[in-house]
Amino acid sequence: MPDYGLLVPGIGDGDPDDVVVVKNLIRAEVAWVEATADAATAQTVSRHASRLLADELRLDTLTRAIAIDAVTTGNPVFGIINALREGLPAEAAAAVHRNLTSQDIVDTAMMLTMRDAARRTLASLDLVCASFAHLAQTHRDTPVLAHTLGQAALPTTFGARVAGWLHGIDEARRALDEQAARIPVAMGGAVGAMHGVGYDDVKRWAEALGLRAPVAPWHVHRHPVTRIAAAFAEVCAELGATAGDVLAGARPEVGELKEPTAKGRGASTAMPFKENPILSILMRRSALVAPHLLSQTTAAAALAVDERPDGAWHTEWDAARALARHAVIASRCAAQLAEGLTFDEEAAARNLAAYGPQGATVGNAPVVVDAILARYEGKES
Amino acid sequence: MPDYGLLVPGIGDGDPDDVVVVKNLIRAEVAWVEATADAATAQTVSRHASRLLADELRLDTLTRAIAIDAVTTGNPVFGIINALREGLPAEAAAAVHRNLTSQDIVDTAMMLTMRDAARRTLASLDLVCASFAHLAQTHRDTPVLAHTLGQAALPTTFGARVAGWLHGIDEARRALDEQAARIPVAMGGAVGAMHGVGYDDVKRWAEALGLRAPVAPWHVHRHPVTRIAAAFAEVCAELGATAGDVLAGARPEVGELKEPTAKGRGASTAMPFKENPILSILMRRSALVAPHLLSQTTAAAALAVDERPDGAWHTEWDAARALARHAVIASRCAAQLAEGLTFDEEAAARNLAAYGPQGATVGNAPVVVDAILARYEGKES
Amino acid sequence: MPDYGLLVPGIGDGDPDDVVVVKNLIRAEVAWVEATADAATAQTVSRHASRLLADELRLDTLTRAIAIDAVTTGNPVFGIINALREGLPAEAAAAVHRNLTSQDIVDTAMMLTMRDAARRTLASLDLVCASFAHLAQTHRDTPVLAHTLGQAALPTTFGARVAGWLHGIDEARRALDEQAARIPVAMGGAVGAMHGVGYDDVKRWAEALGLRAPVAPWHVHRHPVTRIAAAFAEVCAELGATAGDVLAGARPEVGELKEPTAKGRGASTAMPFKENPILSILMRRSALVAPHLLSQTTAAAALAVDERPDGAWHTEWDAARALARHAVIASRCAAQLAEGLTFDEEAAARNLAAYGPQGATVGNAPVVVDAILARYEGKES
Amino acid sequence: MPDYGLLVPGIGDGDPDDVVVVKNLIRAEVAWVEATADAATAQTVSRHASRLLADELRLDTLTRAIAIDAVTTGNPVFGIINALREGLPAEAAAAVHRNLTSQDIVDTAMMLTMRDAARRTLASLDLVCASFAHLAQTHRDTPVLAHTLGQAALPTTFGARVAGWLHGIDEARRALDEQAARIPVAMGGAVGAMHGVGYDDVKRWAEALGLRAPVAPWHVHRHPVTRIAAAFAEVCAELGATAGDVLAGARPEVGELKEPTAKGRGASTAMPFKENPILSILMRRSALVAPHLLSQTTAAAALAVDERPDGAWHTEWDAARALARHAVIASRCAAQLAEGLTFDEEAAARNLAAYGPQGATVGNAPVVVDAILARYEGKES
Repeated sequence: MPDYGLLVPGIGDGDPDDVVVVKNLIRAEVAWVEATADAATAQTVSRHASRLLADELRLDTLTRAIAIDAVTTGNPVFGIINALREGLPAEAAAAVHRNLTSQDIVDTAMMLTMRDAARRTLASLDLVCASFAHLAQTHRDTPVLAHTLGQAALPTTFGARVAGWLHGIDEARRALDEQAARIPVAMGGAVGAMHGVGYDDVKRWAEALGLRAPVAPWHVHRHPVTRIAAAFAEVCAELGATAGDVLAGARPEVGELKEPTAKGRGASTAMPFKENPILSILMRRSALVAPHLLSQTTAAAALAVDERPDGAWHTEWDAARALARHAVIASRCAAQLAEGLTFDEEAAARNLAAYGPQGATVGNAPVVVDAILARYEGKES
Repeated sequence: MPDYGLLVPGIGDGDPDDVVVVKNLIRAEVAWVEATADAATAQTVSRHASRLLADELRLDTLTRAIAIDAVTTGNPVFGIINALREGLPAEAAAAVHRNLTSQDIVDTAMMLTMRDAARRTLASLDLVCASFAHLAQTHRDTPVLAHTLGQAALPTTFGARVAGWLHGIDEARRALDEQAARIPVAMGGAVGAMHGVGYDDVKRWAEALGLRAPVAPWHVHRHPVTRIAAAFAEVCAELGATAGDVLAGARPEVGELKEPTAKGRGASTAMPFKENPILSILMRRSALVAPHLLSQTTAAAALAVDERPDGAWHTEWDAARALARHAVIASRCAAQLAEGLTFDEEAAARNLAAYGPQGATVGNAPVVVDAILARYEGKES
Repeated sequence: MPDYGLLVPGIGDGDPDDVVVVKNLIRAEVAWVEATADAATAQTVSRHASRLLADELRLDTLTRAIAIDAVTTGNPVFGIINALREGLPAEAAAAVHRNLTSQDIVDTAMMLTMRDAARRTLASLDLVCASFAHLAQTHRDTPVLAHTLGQAALPTTFGARVAGWLHGIDEARRALDEQAARIPVAMGGAVGAMHGVGYDDVKRWAEALGLRAPVAPWHVHRHPVTRIAAAFAEVCAELGATAGDVLAGARPEVGELKEPTAKGRGASTAMPFKENPILSILMRRSALVAPHLLSQTTAAAALAVDERPDGAWHTEWDAARALARHAVIASRCAAQLAEGLTFDEEAAARNLAAYGPQGATVGNAPVVVDAILARYEGKES
Repeated sequence: MPDYGLLVPGIGDGDPDDVVVVKNLIRAEVAWVEATADAATAQTVSRHASRLLADELRLDTLTRAIAIDAVTTGNPVFGIINALREGLPAEAAAAVHRNLTSQDIVDTAMMLTMRDAARRTLASLDLVCASFAHLAQTHRDTPVLAHTLGQAALPTTFGARVAGWLHGIDEARRALDEQAARIPVAMGGAVGAMHGVGYDDVKRWAEALGLRAPVAPWHVHRHPVTRIAAAFAEVCAELGATAGDVLAGARPEVGELKEPTAKGRGASTAMPFKENPILSILMRRSALVAPHLLSQTTAAAALAVDERPDGAWHTEWDAARALARHAVIASRCAAQLAEGLTFDEEAAARNLAAYGPQGATVGNAPVVVDAILARYEGKES
């Protein structure tokens, strides 16, 4: 049962896959030992785990084995604990997972995965924003035909359209950044009553992992998940809206926009003359997928009952990870797109003359560009 | 085509229905005149509109007529403009909707509707939190059997369970409050290039309506919608999780919880001996509905192309309003539930003794209660 | 709380609104009396109900009152029973709702509503198919530029594109027709164990209402709902795909397609020169909404537990009705669109020459047209 | 980027993973050569492909390479073609993929994957139905307490409850069986106009693969996908509803039902005394996931524009495959559950006596059992 992303084109090395999650499961367990055991024990466990983490082949085999075995208990934690304890002295082995429940570890590993995916996404979005800010400035005053409800409307400027993309993406970036900084460790112990777990333990654990210590256990109060999920979905939506504009502008009859080219990119098996705008297509794909993943994540939160739910928790995992993945992919495509997008000013002028209303101005489009750039550059709240 | 909420039990007077939206459409138009026309004109329009707003019967008739006619242009603004201009002197009539596009008005009216629904929701949530804070404090140390994955687990306290509800709902309340304070007016004019519209106009308009002036037009950058939508969905999810716990605790074999009773409430047509926990059922219903509405709203954002999209915008309206509505309904039910929820301590003790592990303690459940109450009372960030 | 469809443009008189549902609730109750009581009692009840059904104003008032009161019991059946029994002699009153549970009546009334909506939809789809069949035949051999992944591809014929629309819509029509013919009454009594209800009673009831008698109670086995829901969603999806093509072809730079015009249709408040393709926009809107409604309906089915679920049932109602409504609206718009859609052959030739690959043929496009028309005309399975 | 199902516990060997899809991509290409090339060429290609298909390690490596490379063209077909042509004589190489477009091959491979997943699912469902038919017959007359809206209602029989599960699952099985038999190959060539492709070619291709030859190309008319998707979703929903009942009956305070035990199954990392009902939990999980995947699939269909859409097609793949996967997993868990589910008649009697209404009968519950069994055994339509 290996999936390599065959049906989700765009996935790359180090994106949040199963091996990444396993690494984070291990990291979460080790950091817990470091936060709660004596220094010698912690060092023993830590060294042991480092060897495991350094062995990519063994991690791959372990991931596969744990995944298949997860049908037995419904989650991958048993397999992680066994792998960590194997070969350890009894005392060190006992310190592993002490007083924790599976959910503490799965949730914390998922949060680490979300946090790292957020960082990858933010790094790409920084590039996207910088490129679009430059492009918006360059074409601040270049008239183009606007379309509303699919039809020719008044003119705007190409800079205003690009500034709009920038605005949407910049806001999504800020929201993601804000949420990423708030991602907590999970905690709670067996039933969220912190049996054997102290607030100090949690604080040390969170610090070691670079996450926040939460106010209270959130085993069945899933705002830490739904909020980062919503932030990823907003990123996907804004990039999808941008992609939609690029695709519309790149249609042959319009001919105003062109994706950057690269060897083989966008090739067709049937029509060798084609160059498909594949970056925009993948961005749009991720934007069309994300709402359903957000829905799944939110439904899981709504059904989080008892002290650990009987199915709703399991419903959340794959959707939350997939949202993170699509944000990573879409933003990476967007960085390439934004850097190399070509605008054909002549075609734009031709279309405007042919289909636009005579004598209309671009209104305050340049002022809008200025306002958005000021906000982006931090000069205005 | 009247709907009265027959298939969405729980709707009440003044909840965000079509007449409320029409009122907000009118308010938005009038405030625009006040922000952009001379004082005399503004007064003329304002008085004219006040008469219309005061006539419930005429508003109802107008709403119906506009709704049916909306098939012609795809939105209700033409009907609003006509109603406002009817009988006005030419100059005043010309000031109505000057330089605006339909989307400016529809979006702003929707934002007013969201804001008012948020206020209604927040008022109910304040009551819910106060009731649950009291209940959590009262039963801080009362042991109950916890369930994980549907099975008997270690004990916790009833106070910790209730504090968990409080925590989730309080966090949702804070998030909604934060988003409600950021709700902007829409602006942009015909194509988002602010033809004939100045930033000062927008600022005055926003102030008059008690909304924020946005950085830039957001006709096709829908974070103002998706964010308030996500906040409403979080409210619904947390209330649904609470309802799920109440429903589980109220099952006859468990018998620990009981909804407050009221004449006729929860009656059955077939079984006169029944008293159904209808508040929790409606809360759970709203929680199960909300994720799909959020998905619809997010998909609409992802497809927001051109300077006004050809279908995606229209996709958003009903879902965004329904999310607001379900948050209003669910929180109102929750306020009643929280105020009168009965806990049978004896039954809880019996269940714990019968099904719990022998000799187990409640761990740090009381400490968790304290932490949550401290956060709720604002003593901790 | 009246909604008139303000936020769902396209709704028309007699579309499945709350009053329609109330009528069907009454019809279901009356038919049950006819199926299970003596002739005299049945006649008494039937006459009584006929008066009620004939009084539109009273029905409207009743609907509003029941809707508001539904918060008490969670469904509208109590109000219906009271209205039917009011003023009846004791024996006749007792025959009303005898041995039924609320769910029998709500589900059966919903099924009547679905069936009638299916008929409305099918009538429109017949017109759509006839128009498109004619158009496909007319342009069987007219070359147009095909687009794949947004870019110019090989030529096809306009007839083949239209035949594709026809094919998709015709298949959706067949699926809906098939499902509509299978719609059952609900039955089961208090707990689905048919207390006091016989299979013969159910058979007579079903016959009276023109529905099927089911194999068994389906209170918590919701395939009758999910299947008709899926059929409505397929109709919306196919019409949405067609609308997407019309919108693309009607963009000014393409200029190959034009919606039929009508007074005021597609007008803009800001740009008087515009004629927006509002029929396609509303069809596309319905197609974008439907998937989320289908998701809601399916989630409700997945959570149908016990002998009547505690929230999942209530989750289904509004979504199932909205799916029916969108199918009715979208197909009605489509009938108008299909009848009057204009194709500009010259523009198509110009675009093909400008952007198509030189010397390419239309392949077997005409053969595809023939195959689809043969299937549509029933000459081929 | 390997995923092994870590976050989707229950996945097993041969379930529809990326390697399975790659095999089906190869099979589709080879069968096309066999359907359209001369015998010698076909044999050359077929032998070549057989060696590839027999080499699991090479397939795994190929899958990974193709998946990563798919970002370049947006789909995996280039990689498949290259792998198939490598080392072939020029004529045979030219016969590979002749006149096809990527979509013909991706869609056909997906349909093979769906068909095989349907067969796996149906085999499990046969076992589920047989077990539940036996259980329903055994307890045809055994009284249990029914619950409606979470509260004690009239009695039914355990046989009637199980027969209800059987009924829902049997209907879903029939619907899946019907749809599985209708699964077509894709066809159409570059733009759905069958350039260089004849209906006879398609017919031979379909026969070779055991699929149906469609009426017309369905590149942008996705009923073949949405229908099998809806059938998988119905399977998941019915199994989820059953799981919900098992989970409710297995709660300690109820104690009527118990999942079959197996070494380690349902173990807890924190509470060694626990045995979690993991089969039901995974079934319920799949049921909670499926609606969102169906929504995604349906939205993709609604956005299928042009002759191949610019993102909507890519949106469909992962969701359609995941739906198939969850149906396979859930039905496999269900077969184990149904075979070994234990019913505690004494506990049921105790609960009924304690919480049921005095003196109530089970109504016609046994008659319902008989009707469902008759339908299951094919004695009644």
